Amino acid sequence: MQKETPTKQKEFHSQLNHVEVRPEEKMWALVYQGPGKRRYEQKTKPSLQQSTDVILKMVKTTICGTDLHIMKGDVPEVKPGTILGHEGIGIVETVGDAVSNFKPGDKVLISCITADGHCEYCRRAMYSHCENGGWILGHLIDGTQAEYVRIPFADTSLYPVPIGADDEALAMLSDILPTAYECGVLNGEVKPGDSVAIIGAGPIGLATLLTCQLYSPAQIIVVDLDEYRLGIAKKLGATTILNSKQSDIVEKIRSMTDGKGVDVAIEAVGTPETFDYCQKIIAPGGHIANIGVHGKSVELKLQDLWSKNITITTRLVDTESTPMLLKTVQSGKITPQALITHHFKLSEVMKAYDVFGNAEKEQVLKVIISHDQ
Amino acid sequence: MQKETPTKQKEFHSQLNHVEVRPEEKMWALVYQGPGKRRYEQKTKPSLQQSTDVILKMVKTTICGTDLHIMKGDVPEVKPGTILGHEGIGIVETVGDAVSNFKPGDKVLISCITADGHCEYCRRAMYSHCENGGWILGHLIDGTQAEYVRIPFADTSLYPVPIGADDEALAMLSDILPTAYECGVLNGEVKPGDSVAIIGAGPIGLATLLTCQLYSPAQIIVVDLDEYRLGIAKKLGATTILNSKQSDIVEKIRSMTDGKGVDVAIEAVGTPETFDYCQKIIAPGGHIANIGVHGKSVELKLQDLWSKNITITTRLVDTESTPMLLKTVQSGKITPQALITHHFKLSEVMKAYDVFGNAEKEQVLKVIISHDQ
Amino acid sequence: MQKETPTKQKEFHSQLNHVEVRPEEKMWALVYQGPGKRRYEQKTKPSLQQSTDVILKMVKTTICGTDLHIMKGDVPEVKPGTILGHEGIGIVETVGDAVSNFKPGDKVLISCITADGHCEYCRRAMYSHCENGGWILGHLIDGTQAEYVRIPFADTSLYPVPIGADDEALAMLSDILPTAYECGVLNGEVKPGDSVAIIGAGPIGLATLLTCQLYSPAQIIVVDLDEYRLGIAKKLGATTILNSKQSDIVEKIRSMTDGKGVDVAIEAVGTPETFDYCQKIIAPGGHIANIGVHGKSVELKLQDLWSKNITITTRLVDTESTPMLLKTVQSGKITPQALITHHFKLSEVMKAYDVFGNAEKEQVLKVIISHDQ
Amino acid sequence: MQKETPTKQKEFHSQLNHVEVRPEEKMWALVYQGPGKRRYEQKTKPSLQQSTDVILKMVKTTICGTDLHIMKGDVPEVKPGTILGHEGIGIVETVGDAVSNFKPGDKVLISCITADGHCEYCRRAMYSHCENGGWILGHLIDGTQAEYVRIPFADTSLYPVPIGADDEALAMLSDILPTAYECGVLNGEVKPGDSVAIIGAGPIGLATLLTCQLYSPAQIIVVDLDEYRLGIAKKLGATTILNSKQSDIVEKIRSMTDGKGVDVAIEAVGTPETFDYCQKIIAPGGHIANIGVHGKSVELKLQDLWSKNITITTRLVDTESTPMLLKTVQSGKITPQALITHHFKLSEVMKAYDVFGNAEKEQVLKVIISHDQ
Repeated sequence: MQKETPTKQKEFHSQLNHVEVRPEEKMWALVYQGPGKRRYEQKTKPSLQQSTDVILKMVKTTICGTDLHIMKGDVPEVKPGTILGHEGIGIVETVGDAVSNFKPGDKVLISCITADGHCEYCRRAMYSHCENGGWILGHLIDGTQAEYVRIPFADTSLYPVPIGADDEALAMLSDILPTAYECGVLNGEVKPGDSVAIIGAGPIGLATLLTCQLYSPAQIIVVDLDEYRLGIAKKLGATTILNSKQSDIVEKIRSMTDGKGVDVAIEAVGTPETFDYCQKIIAPGGHIANIGVHGKSVELKLQDLWSKNITITTRLVDTESTPMLLKTVQSGKITPQALITHHFKLSEVMKAYDVFGNAEKEQVLKVIISHDQ
Repeated sequence: MQKETPTKQKEFHSQLNHVEVRPEEKMWALVYQGPGKRRYEQKTKPSLQQSTDVILKMVKTTICGTDLHIMKGDVPEVKPGTILGHEGIGIVETVGDAVSNFKPGDKVLISCITADGHCEYCRRAMYSHCENGGWILGHLIDGTQAEYVRIPFADTSLYPVPIGADDEALAMLSDILPTAYECGVLNGEVKPGDSVAIIGAGPIGLATLLTCQLYSPAQIIVVDLDEYRLGIAKKLGATTILNSKQSDIVEKIRSMTDGKGVDVAIEAVGTPETFDYCQKIIAPGGHIANIGVHGKSVELKLQDLWSKNITITTRLVDTESTPMLLKTVQSGKITPQALITHHFKLSEVMKAYDVFGNAEKEQVLKVIISHDQ
Repeated sequence: MQKETPTKQKEFHSQLNHVEVRPEEKMWALVYQGPGKRRYEQKTKPSLQQSTDVILKMVKTTICGTDLHIMKGDVPEVKPGTILGHEGIGIVETVGDAVSNFKPGDKVLISCITADGHCEYCRRAMYSHCENGGWILGHLIDGTQAEYVRIPFADTSLYPVPIGADDEALAMLSDILPTAYECGVLNGEVKPGDSVAIIGAGPIGLATLLTCQLYSPAQIIVVDLDEYRLGIAKKLGATTILNSKQSDIVEKIRSMTDGKGVDVAIEAVGTPETFDYCQKIIAPGGHIANIGVHGKSVELKLQDLWSKNITITTRLVDTESTPMLLKTVQSGKITPQALITHHFKLSEVMKAYDVFGNAEKEQVLKVIISHDQ
Repeated sequence: MQKETPTKQKEFHSQLNHVEVRPEEKMWALVYQGPGKRRYEQKTKPSLQQSTDVILKMVKTTICGTDLHIMKGDVPEVKPGTILGHEGIGIVETVGDAVSNFKPGDKVLISCITADGHCEYCRRAMYSHCENGGWILGHLIDGTQAEYVRIPFADTSLYPVPIGADDEALAMLSDILPTAYECGVLNGEVKPGDSVAIIGAGPIGLATLLTCQLYSPAQIIVVDLDEYRLGIAKKLGATTILNSKQSDIVEKIRSMTDGKGVDVAIEAVGTPETFDYCQKIIAPGGHIANIGVHGKSVELKLQDLWSKNITITTRLVDTESTPMLLKTVQSGKITPQALITHHFKLSEVMKAYDVFGNAEKEQVLKVIISHDQ
């Protein structure tokens, strides 16, 4: 998940968040304490607040790059005292009266996006812009890095986990896989036979590499500065890896594509420089799909692009592809567990943050936090 | 048509251009003489050079904003001595051996885009990027502001004029209508019920206004600085006109759209400021369709847009919609003659340039140059 | 609405239907009494049964051709004692706890399709196949031809009526307009410049005629046996009307389309003969969109069609286009009130059925039943 | 390729076919002699007849199921004396004046569909309906089962063979792969995660199996009567194989798909029975894509399907996907050579027909005829 500031939701959910019900029950959780500070501590166990809520006992969760942004203070609407985390697998413990898709005991996949299912945006499958939801978990309300979590609008925000599924593989479907697939692959309109360049081989770039292969592009060029990550990209299906420290990647990509550039350029970093690569390597008729979270403007060279029949897209993940991704993972077409490099228990979550926050040195991609003892 | 610099075509066609065959036959033409200079003078009448060529006797032509750019010296690949013009209606005089769609005597519509019909881009209907064509008329080879013109690849670059059609209406189908429709309406994906903002009420903006109504949007907001043009927009179907000199159009448009912004914003000017309006008024899930010719970079505010599920498109007209537009004009669904404000004879073409070049004062939209005496 | 037999919903809702709560309050309603028999009688006023329900006081309703089918006994899952009707406008009286889009006093448009908003089909916007909804009003549960009606899953089955809207125009948006638009126009992929044939000029065919004009086809040929209806079609925008009793319409349509046939053929009757017209008049690359309810098989001439690049579609209305149609009606792009020929009070509903059931003689298209006194 | 009767092309090309130019040069060819009769004999070597022609020296060709239909007399517009064959790889020997994409010595892939590139259908990429082309090779003009062949409209009917490509793999791209891909996979709109059923495991069904995997469906169920072919299907990626002689495939497929049926059903046989399977196993919202050549009508059960939101498509291959398939084969995403079971020299072409005509007993899928000595 990536930062966002939805004012309306903020008020709605922060209000709900403070109506705690049964103060006697406690649980362990990773709690944000303000910029640079977090604690693994005991918090009140959540309880149902709306008839559409579900309470889950967590099974697996993970840490997202966005959690690191929160820790740096980049997402000021996260209040100290908030439990972080917006991904994972859990077991339904209690359900509100209006919930009909789930019952206690069901194992479920948590979507990083909460969807009320009935606002104008949800009716258009733009769940990320849900007027009562969107990204709220571990952001405007308590999240998943805890023993229990409350999920609002459960019928439209959880998915049943198929029997026999690999929990850790599915934990990658809460956020990183649908983000890569929807913002990168679907928006980029990757087609069989295409040439695709992915700028950035971090977890999101690599998830894009995995999911773009669902459409059988002929060329997949992955660009990064880190040799370890490029090595992983090669193993996961890149047809070419390029280190942008060592070569003029614009010239190289042009020469690999008959001078035309790539059909699809996917920005998976979030800086003006990486966006600029995309506009320099895109072929006439091509698509630039932005996934990266940008903190400042980029220079769009319309003097070059105005006549090039280019499409540029932006998107916050809607998780509308989750049912499809579940089928695809179950059938073995993608193996998202390939992104998991480290495992921790929930009681080790403080250490997990330390390791994940030092990604390059530790050679971390995604970590799994297991809640079972 | 709008400026472009296709190196390969340039060489190919400039070479052909100099192989003149029957020097004895002369005709009148408007000839570019270098920046700021043009002459109405006698030139050699064109003759067939390739088996796929056709020679047309011109009936109607017009002047494009791009012709003014050429006159300013902004399109340096136009060589002094070139006959300008890339639009119009003509009568087939002679045809090359390989031409099968047309015969002498046929009245035809000239496409501003020349398409060889067999290169990779033409096979994808991206005729603007044709490897042997694209925009070459009145640019890399002699154009239509003359008594006769040579049209390369005639089978895929001309269209039969239906019997009884209004020649002047159809002259708008050479460039301005397909440009507005393809770059603005099609790329913007205008749909029934949509809210659409068109930034710029010049001829292109007004042609966008006409053609977007083929899809029945509910709101069409037209923005300009010129009251005369806004008045025309109102007559041609705008539901709201806004003068950006007199009001904060961003705030106004937001208030007219429940605070969300428009579904489609169409840039029909070509400046950083007008592009900026588009990114400020676009709703989540919306489309920004650029038509304007840009001379410099624009600031793309990805810090605001990265999560807004926005699509931005650029395009040079491909004229792939010409057959559809012909049907639509014939059936009375659009009346492009509404854009024509002034008429001249070919012998008055020098004056026509003077008037057209002084658009605001003269209240000119499109002019018609008639070749018949 | 058109007949359908969803077993699961049937059980679910018939069960709910029998849990009546406040027997003391009565209201008037049109009640099905078995094949051929109906009564205008007093029934218990409905009350909330689920937290997602709303109770509406009806304002306007109408009678659908499907109601006549029910009366003939063609829809056996409708049990005697059921209040008929699945269309109309009402005022919210009470709302269940889980309803968040509506409050008492809101004027709302009833969708003929009830959508739970969270099943697999609803997530794909295929509300007609909703696992807990679909067409249930006036079918598996009590309907709208009464003073009050209970609407399940109100948040996803009702739409706010804009202030100042014409109630009677909007009553056409419960069923007939989205049916014509989705099953005919959207599925037929009508595009600007297309040639379209609509087979059948009954209410559904005429609603197709109205809504297809949102896409500006160049030719709209309407075929029927009834001169009165053809006359209406001519007034509502048909470019050609053809009486299939009087001429060989296949030959005529071919001659009007350069021998190729139409781009889109829309079947709005539901018989093998009318479907056969469609397959005979369709051009290569064309679309046959079926709207008609068929009681038996048709002969599909694959020996002729296998190589013609034809698309044939079927669909039960999903009402996913209702928000768009609301905007389009509000902006004056379509005027569905043109279909309304007769008005009755609710107390005259028995007579309204008599008149509507004798459509040809009475020259009826759509009737309005007003609930206000 | 599959039979078709385009009257206009027939006249145009049969006329050209008889203007033989240099009678002194002879070549060997497989010549149709009327129903049931063929001869391997000497024929006049073809020469250029139009400026858009190319003469090829053949390298590899194959025999199509359609050639067997011709031999049975099912395609009466094939005149005795015609050289059969519409597939293969060749080397350019001579080119007409208007040909610009190819020069002598180029190795090229022959498309089974000849496209003039400029008629209305070609402009819409419906090359199969080309007004001057379509399927004419080995049908209305001499074909590829010979030492040399004349290809009309070469610029838009041939494709360059990449250096290092496997000629035999590419010979599958003349007809069978684009047919399977366009008529089955593209028209069926196969998507990642889908359930797909392919009815028929002959060469076309197996080519559909190969090409549908470009879109990563989760389930691919292949149905046939022949255990050998089902075994091949299993090896080539079917997730389930079903022998329709041994089990109730409708019931089995429903039980494998939660009672809903498949998202995509592809008919690859051409009989009423196999089409009927498709309509019985299709899920709501699903696509039935017909590839099979049908000799008679089928019963379309609209009484069941009218409300199921089904799309049925038919198509003759347009070969618009050939450039994409070339890239996909070159990148190793599909290996069409897996369909090749037998090899012959051109001099053995009579025997090749015997073997191919006895497919079940000989366990033949596709044969390769090599022209080199």
